[in-house]
Amino acid sequence: MQQYSSTLLERAVGEFAKLPGIGRKTALRLVLHLLRQPVEDAEGFAEAVATLCREVKYCKVCHNISDSDICEICSQPSRDASTVCVVETVRDVIAVENTSLYRGLYHVLGGVISPMDGIGPADLQIDSLVERVREGGVKEVIFALSPTMEGDTTNFYIYRKLAGTDVRMSVLSRGISVGDELEYADEVTLGRSIVNRMPFTGKTY
Amino acid sequence: MQQYSSTLLERAVGEFAKLPGIGRKTALRLVLHLLRQPVEDAEGFAEAVATLCREVKYCKVCHNISDSDICEICSQPSRDASTVCVVETVRDVIAVENTSLYRGLYHVLGGVISPMDGIGPADLQIDSLVERVREGGVKEVIFALSPTMEGDTTNFYIYRKLAGTDVRMSVLSRGISVGDELEYADEVTLGRSIVNRMPFTGKTY
Repeated sequence: MQQYSSTLLERAVGEFAKLPGIGRKTALRLVLHLLRQPVEDAEGFAEAVATLCREVKYCKVCHNISDSDICEICSQPSRDASTVCVVETVRDVIAVENTSLYRGLYHVLGGVISPMDGIGPADLQIDSLVERVREGGVKEVIFALSPTMEGDTTNFYIYRKLAGTDVRMSVLSRGISVGDELEYADEVTLGRSIVNRMPFTGKTY
Repeated sequence: MQQYSSTLLERAVGEFAKLPGIGRKTALRLVLHLLRQPVEDAEGFAEAVATLCREVKYCKVCHNISDSDICEICSQPSRDASTVCVVETVRDVIAVENTSLYRGLYHVLGGVISPMDGIGPADLQIDSLVERVREGGVKEVIFALSPTMEGDTTNFYIYRKLAGTDVRMSVLSRGISVGDELEYADEVTLGRSIVNRMPFTGKTY
């Protein structure tokens, strides 16, 4: 490991290099950038990170990151509380919100069932989802997990747990990405999109 | 700009996104990574950054980042104090140190003369270099600035300032990169490397 002339620099670079996708060269570049800023700016950066990690709250209903006990989305009366979109992480909430096409609520599982990584149903917010549905008021649960083996397993586990309630369950449509060239679509996706073809109504999807 | 459900999250992402080469998506990924760590780890990260920016010192001799008034390199008696390598930034010191082929000292200018960016000689550690040479003891100054217009201008400015002293001045050799394919070398580099060809002594450079 390369040596710097300052242990303070060494420590800061080491901390940055722990972040995902940041190697030691990039870490050094970022730290030297912060050093070139006025000291208040760099302290503001450090303060924002420390405050977030110390004071972060998770919504008691949907487990999204929040400033208060109930998050902004769950507390908006204009949103449709009868539809719950089940997602893996906070990033997925943001991704769906960015589409501006969904007006229901969310449920953040905190991951997917993955025996390889030692993540079982008890590590996820699945029980609280089942409870939320049992309490009534939820008419539809939309599974919006990644289309992977783990995502599908988790979908199926929740599906079994919710069997017996009269909630409707749906999953994000899978098929060719909008704007994709057909010849570059993988065989599984293309095959499935033929099997699960949708009625054509003259509209663009 | 996309909205998050937490102002604390918003602020931390905003701070990360100010760093060079970090967009808002990457910033969010990094912040959520920190959130997944134990809170002490995230506070350790913030603390390392704040401490560095608050307590950083620059060596009084060479202006390298240092823990004390005189940096580790300048205070090592085993190093050759008669040779001074002039570099732009702290990163260049680390780059040259990593070659393990240089045993002299450094002088960090803090940039290069660049009228376009409003950086003149007075903004750089040029006067202190001239003084360092005038005090005696320095036999050779090696210019190790970037081979750009600005770097060459700065080399020339310092060369003029040091004219009249009996210090020897040299510049990093320029030519084909080791391991490069000749056909991909740019014309200027290739042309110069023919004009400035070196005597072949049977050794590999």
